[in-house]
Parts: sequence; structure tokens; C-alpha cells
Amino acid sequence: MNWLDQVKFDSAGLIPAIAQDAQSRRILMVAWMNRESLEETHASGIAVYWSRSRQSLWRKGESSGHTQKIKNIRLDCDSDVILLEVEQIGGIACHTGRESCFYRKLEQSGDEPAWVSIDPVLKDPELIYK
Amino acid sequence: MNWLDQVKFDSAGLIPAIAQDAQSRRILMVAWMNRESLEETHASGIAVYWSRSRQSLWRKGESSGHTQKIKNIRLDCDSDVILLEVEQIGGIACHTGRESCFYRKLEQSGDEPAWVSIDPVLKDPELIYK
Repeated sequence: MNWLDQVKFDSAGLIPAIAQDAQSRRILMVAWMNRESLEETHASGIAVYWSRSRQSLWRKGESSGHTQKIKNIRLDCDSDVILLEVEQIGGIACHTGRESCFYRKLEQSGDEPAWVSIDPVLKDPELIYK
Repeated sequence: MNWLDQVKFDSAGLIPAIAQDAQSRRILMVAWMNRESLEETHASGIAVYWSRSRQSLWRKGESSGHTQKIKNIRLDCDSDVILLEVEQIGGIACHTGRESCFYRKLEQSGDEPAWVSIDPVLKDPELIYK
């Protein structure tokens, strides 16, 4: 069976894809892929997602320059999640200018837990998307 | 705002949760959480998911003993993906007896790419779920 036919896309034709930095092992982001974006990701060696808001292919880094070079593509046991091991060009994956989108951590704040931003902004987003 | 109210559950009341080994940084698995499972995960310090197939709380490790001790809970910039940094008890997260559910890698096989299992089975699943 073709490798793409083994991937279980959901009823909307999409599958979640995790991007992990191949070197630091940091989880950078999660986005969605359709069959076409997965095929192009493999063929080009650069991460291509599907933008649900724009309903179009999202060649990450096209405007920011922060592309993701593919080192490995993995599939989970249920065939319904993709894992991309990448080299993150520019060291910034998040649109906020941080390395990773997972920059908030649950910490105790007085009596209540709170989501606290713990990672630095490496570059002002206004300078990234100009 | 309450920390749980800041989390964006989807139209089915669910959010994907990635479990990452806090030490090896390996991505172990992806499962789903509802509000109740996220609240219990935080309160108990042990990963609790929502089983979509069984439509019930899934206290991972209840039958296998392979629980996940919570080290950190992170949230992404869109507030729609949870990241759990965990200590994987028993060193096995996958029901196939492997450390990680992402044990298949896309490799060139002759003319075509193919998903190849590259990680060892650490324990026979029949011995895990007995």
C-alpha cells in the first residue's frame, strides 16, 4: 500500500502534525496537514501544513523565513498523528517570536494555578513579519 | 480567569495532549483530554485522558502500571494543544510494548517511501495487559 494511503486523515481530510526540533528535542508547534501538504513536505524536504483558517496550503516560513527542514517523518501506532523532526531555521517557530509555541507553563500563583509565560521572545514579531 | 477557562476545547469538548518524556525528550504519545481529565491530571499529578472510543476517562496505566507522572503542563500560543512533560513509569507508553507510539519512520524502500518500524518492543503486550 502507498505510504500516504496508510495515513489516517480525519473526516475533514486532516491529520495533526507535531514539529520537534531534531537537536534540542524541544516541541516547537502543532499544526494540521492534508494529504497534499504531507506529500509536498516529503518531496520538498520543507514543512508544509494546511491552514484551517485560510483553507490553503501553508508553506511555513514563506513570509518569516523561518522554514523547517525535515530530518525525519514519523507516524504513530494509530496512524493518526504525524511527527516531524526538523531543523528550525532562525530558531523561531512561534508567531510570537519565541522558539516554541509551548511557552506557557502551569504554575501555582497564590491559591490558584495560572498559565505563566516562561520563554523569552527572541525577535519582535513586527520585525519578523514586515 | 480560571486556568481551565483559558483552554480552548474543540466543539466536542476535547483538546489534543502530547506526552513527552521529561528526561529523554522523546515524544511518547498523543491522546485527547476533556476539561475533567485535564483538571484531574493537574490535581492528581498523573496523566488522565479522555478515551474517544470508550467515551470515558482514561487513567493511563490503570491496567498496565505504565502511568505518567506529571512534571510540567504546558499550553501553546493558540491555547488549543496541551503538552505534558512526564516521567513514564516502566519506560513504555505504547500499547505495542514500545517506549513511544511514534516508532515508525518514513524511509526510502526501493522506488517508494515506506513506513518502517525502527524501535524495539521492550515488553510483549500480552505480558503487559494480563
